[in-house]
Amino acid sequence: MLRQANGTLDVRAPAQGLHPITAEVESWLDAQGFESGLLTLFCRHTSASLLIQENAAPAARRDLERYFERVAPEGAAYEHDDEGPDDMPAHLRSALTQTQLSIPLTGGRLTLGTWQGIYLFEHRRGTPSREIALHLIGE
Amino acid sequence: MLRQANGTLDVRAPAQGLHPITAEVESWLDAQGFESGLLTLFCRHTSASLLIQENAAPAARRDLERYFERVAPEGAAYEHDDEGPDDMPAHLRSALTQTQLSIPLTGGRLTLGTWQGIYLFEHRRGTPSREIALHLIGE
Amino acid sequence: MLRQANGTLDVRAPAQGLHPITAEVESWLDAQGFESGLLTLFCRHTSASLLIQENAAPAARRDLERYFERVAPEGAAYEHDDEGPDDMPAHLRSALTQTQLSIPLTGGRLTLGTWQGIYLFEHRRGTPSREIALHLIGE
Repeated sequence: MLRQANGTLDVRAPAQGLHPITAEVESWLDAQGFESGLLTLFCRHTSASLLIQENAAPAARRDLERYFERVAPEGAAYEHDDEGPDDMPAHLRSALTQTQLSIPLTGGRLTLGTWQGIYLFEHRRGTPSREIALHLIGE
Repeated sequence: MLRQANGTLDVRAPAQGLHPITAEVESWLDAQGFESGLLTLFCRHTSASLLIQENAAPAARRDLERYFERVAPEGAAYEHDDEGPDDMPAHLRSALTQTQLSIPLTGGRLTLGTWQGIYLFEHRRGTPSREIALHLIGE
Repeated sequence: MLRQANGTLDVRAPAQGLHPITAEVESWLDAQGFESGLLTLFCRHTSASLLIQENAAPAARRDLERYFERVAPEGAAYEHDDEGPDDMPAHLRSALTQTQLSIPLTGGRLTLGTWQGIYLFEHRRGTPSREIALHLIGE
């Protein structure tokens, strides 16, 4: 019998960059007791985003962070700059990555590949915790 | 009891750039009478896309538009240019943003954050209306 | 009566670039016998991704491939380079495109637009086959 569940994940990202949230997501998922279905994560912010990326090599994550710092840099001439130099780059980096991710579930587990981890990509400095809305449908 | 609904949103974007569609989406959603679930928007085009972004500061939206004009510019040497100078940049800007967005629903409302708006990102000039397929599942 | 189905698509992409998978996806879909619902594709890799793009003009796909080669180039100074020069660019190009796509289904068919095709975007050379997890919910 299909059913659904809703939840919220509060993530405190103490610095800019990729913060792993796979364990917190799986912990919430386990508590719902679903065997199969579809999990959706929705980031409720426009200056932080979601990304599925390499979970083993920290150097790959640092290269990713540096890449987005370079293609959407602070210090460019933005019209919108009253919230600080990290604000407009944060919107751009969010637009280039994901606000939402959906992941199928089989055998009670996410179908993530061996090298895939789920990350909150924090683009601002000194933010309070971020909210990720969760939705699960299946059985 | 879980159920689903399908719909289509026709959006007329009179110029290139970010066009707010949150109100139209919520209006369709209200008519379906769901309390919780998952709403999916799917843009049926490859030269327009979807984006969730800042809903308060028009300057932030103008910076976003200028950014994508700069990173996927008209006037670059594209092989595919028989449909006009705005065509290939439109495909590139679509590839860099979203064709599809899914948003959880709780308490009869989308779980959008305070500063989040849904936008059709029109990348071409003088297009007819665009079609966004809608799917809702929940109860 | 709502129900769901899970599956896996194995895709062999013999070279870097956009490989059409619409036919394979539709073939799996037809075998499930759903009339309406939501199909989700999830790429189980961090160096290959998914994209919905122009299905008619090969020149547009070649421009897309060249664009991503240019904005996330091989030969840049990456810290993570022990898996070959195509590895870090592959992660970057994946981050800029999609790991997951969901497409509504009506009348037994995907709501793809006339010019939309589904592609596996292979970013590495000489990879074995790639796995795409499939989830379908509807009736």
